[in-house]
Amino acid sequence: MEKILDKFQFNYSPEIGIYVNFKTNIPLSLFYNPDTDVLTLLDQSKIPYEVTCWSTGDWKDAALKGIRGMIVRGSQAIGVTGAYCMVLACKDLNDTLPSSIKTLKKRANVIKESRPTAVNLSWAVNRVIRNIELSDLNSVEELREKVLETANEIFLEDLILNNYLRLNGVKYFKSGDVVLTHCNAGSLATAYGGSALSILAEVFNKGEDILVVSKETRPRSQGFKITLWELNRIGIPTVAVTDNMISKSIEKFKINKILVGADRITKDGAVTNKIGTFDIAKIAKLENIDFYVAASHSTLDLDIDGSQVPIEEREKDEVMSFYNYEIRYLSEMGVISSSALNQWPPEDILTSSDKPEIGKIRIFNPGFDTTLPEYVTKIIMDIGVFNPSDIINLSWDKIYSIISDLKKNFIFFK
Amino acid sequence: MEKILDKFQFNYSPEIGIYVNFKTNIPLSLFYNPDTDVLTLLDQSKIPYEVTCWSTGDWKDAALKGIRGMIVRGSQAIGVTGAYCMVLACKDLNDTLPSSIKTLKKRANVIKESRPTAVNLSWAVNRVIRNIELSDLNSVEELREKVLETANEIFLEDLILNNYLRLNGVKYFKSGDVVLTHCNAGSLATAYGGSALSILAEVFNKGEDILVVSKETRPRSQGFKITLWELNRIGIPTVAVTDNMISKSIEKFKINKILVGADRITKDGAVTNKIGTFDIAKIAKLENIDFYVAASHSTLDLDIDGSQVPIEEREKDEVMSFYNYEIRYLSEMGVISSSALNQWPPEDILTSSDKPEIGKIRIFNPGFDTTLPEYVTKIIMDIGVFNPSDIINLSWDKIYSIISDLKKNFIFFK
Repeated sequence: MEKILDKFQFNYSPEIGIYVNFKTNIPLSLFYNPDTDVLTLLDQSKIPYEVTCWSTGDWKDAALKGIRGMIVRGSQAIGVTGAYCMVLACKDLNDTLPSSIKTLKKRANVIKESRPTAVNLSWAVNRVIRNIELSDLNSVEELREKVLETANEIFLEDLILNNYLRLNGVKYFKSGDVVLTHCNAGSLATAYGGSALSILAEVFNKGEDILVVSKETRPRSQGFKITLWELNRIGIPTVAVTDNMISKSIEKFKINKILVGADRITKDGAVTNKIGTFDIAKIAKLENIDFYVAASHSTLDLDIDGSQVPIEEREKDEVMSFYNYEIRYLSEMGVISSSALNQWPPEDILTSSDKPEIGKIRIFNPGFDTTLPEYVTKIIMDIGVFNPSDIINLSWDKIYSIISDLKKNFIFFK
Repeated sequence: MEKILDKFQFNYSPEIGIYVNFKTNIPLSLFYNPDTDVLTLLDQSKIPYEVTCWSTGDWKDAALKGIRGMIVRGSQAIGVTGAYCMVLACKDLNDTLPSSIKTLKKRANVIKESRPTAVNLSWAVNRVIRNIELSDLNSVEELREKVLETANEIFLEDLILNNYLRLNGVKYFKSGDVVLTHCNAGSLATAYGGSALSILAEVFNKGEDILVVSKETRPRSQGFKITLWELNRIGIPTVAVTDNMISKSIEKFKINKILVGADRITKDGAVTNKIGTFDIAKIAKLENIDFYVAASHSTLDLDIDGSQVPIEEREKDEVMSFYNYEIRYLSEMGVISSSALNQWPPEDILTSSDKPEIGKIRIFNPGFDTTLPEYVTKIIMDIGVFNPSDIINLSWDKIYSIISDLKKNFIFFK
């Protein structure tokens, strides 16, 4: 593993407490040390305000504090973390092999339940279990080895496939490009080096003169918090704008390309991504600006169309938290009286009904929107680059065969 | 004045300390009491967290704390306040008439300088001065009377013309309409009852079943703070969304009309308004949704085209203040270490250059954008309703003659 991290240009950073890529200056999102049996997660709940790591040797802590507590976030990073939770969950097994496997499977359910909607989490944990079932194991020691081997394989596959995604994307960007991005389609959502920002890092590190415009991405502000932090570590010149400055930024900075990530890409080539993506796509269409999507093959959903993707509606507190901070601050400063605390918005005017009644306010907080395929120029993935209309021709058999070829071609893999 | 406020359906609210319209529940933004020589301003710097008034009998306080300190905001409200600052500035004049006029003119300059870019402020103060110069005054007492008469005229004109604007706008909205608005084009920007929200209040109070969607309007969040507060007082059912939810809100709530205010309308029919307006207009165009602008005739600039309107770029702190509140809160809660305070974004990575250098971030914070006339359906004004292409045919002579007729027709005037 050390050797592989070396080949991937990582150095250990004692300051942060994890390996950091010395070309991009971006840390791994997680690392498992087999010598100490400790899983280390970059603490994403504190970024950008503080850059530290959180470590544990306990599988339950890793699942409940690490994954559920959102110290690690982003679909791919959660998947890999789940696999290493399984490694930790093997540590104290000391019963017979069948009974140990039974215990491990129970723990696997707890791990998967720590974030039940994270598809990559159950996918990774199930892959560990499948590998156990397909192997001819003779001891608990061999069980431990098989689980670690599978977790490492999932981790390395993430590094390798992200590397292909970067290489696939690089050719679409060149000196002089001004690229608008939204939310965080960056390294931190993966073990390392995932999707949109990593393509731009690769282009920038080739010496191309690019400018990136990052949108705030309310309500969780991933564009200001995580994306600005990543771009700044890489060194890419960056402009930060709020979400309502699309047209003005296009005019001011001559934005000529859009690059965003994806949470789900359906068989019709529609792209479900962070709320606000479709607004950008529509304006880009009117302004004749190319709209690129960069995402792992794991976001593909070949069973349904974009119109069938369920859109999660999230808590009102996510939208209002800034106002609660502000009211607290103004009250502490004596600008408003302390009795004003929590007066606005009054609890009783918040409602979740689709059409609020008279005198009521509803806070609508959808997490995602779905961009129609006719607004998308190219979909850049680890397994290749596609027009939206090409996705219908993909099948999982085809995808797995491409991945298998990619892994074979990758000299560092085994 | 009491009688006029009665006709306009105002009652004095001891709770707030100012007159409140009993149909809309919205307070006056300012009120001058000639019996006590006190100017009262609704304290807009505390809304929505606290609803109180601020009063003064001192002209310098009114200008420097009231206007410059942004206790009063919004172009029309600032103009009327400036006129009453002139009334206060007459109070202690006890020299000869020529010498008193000279002192008043000096004070007028201080008042105008309290917000030098507010066109309505210098317009109103200059109108007071012009009226003094055109009058045949014989004493300081007559000077005081003339100034008060002019200030009251400016105040009443604002009430009356806003009333015409509402009546002009009402016919474009009906039961079943779902209207998206942006920023605050409401009563608080005027003495009372100005522009977009007041039209919707009128429609709602006629008994029409409408729904309003209010966008947050980062970075100053007028949509969440002031607009939600106004709509909630009026009672109109309201949905609050962040700025990146335009497409999703159109889909979810079947938005069929857009209604926004304007800061400047140029001779080509282009509309300069709060940043984010043009983004909405573009998406509305693609979705075949009518785009209405409601504004006072005082926003007309018949000398230039939209492309010539200078766009103010504002302080980065305006964008970052929420993050400063958050970091403070997280630090107080012990989530991040207290040494993290003010670490992000580090001052030295922020730059104001158009194209940031390597490793630098620029926060771009334009206050406005200019929507091209081909995106605008109708411009609803106090002086009539216009297609964008009609604006070129207006002249100030024509506008003043329309206003003069409107005032004559208004039974409560004088």
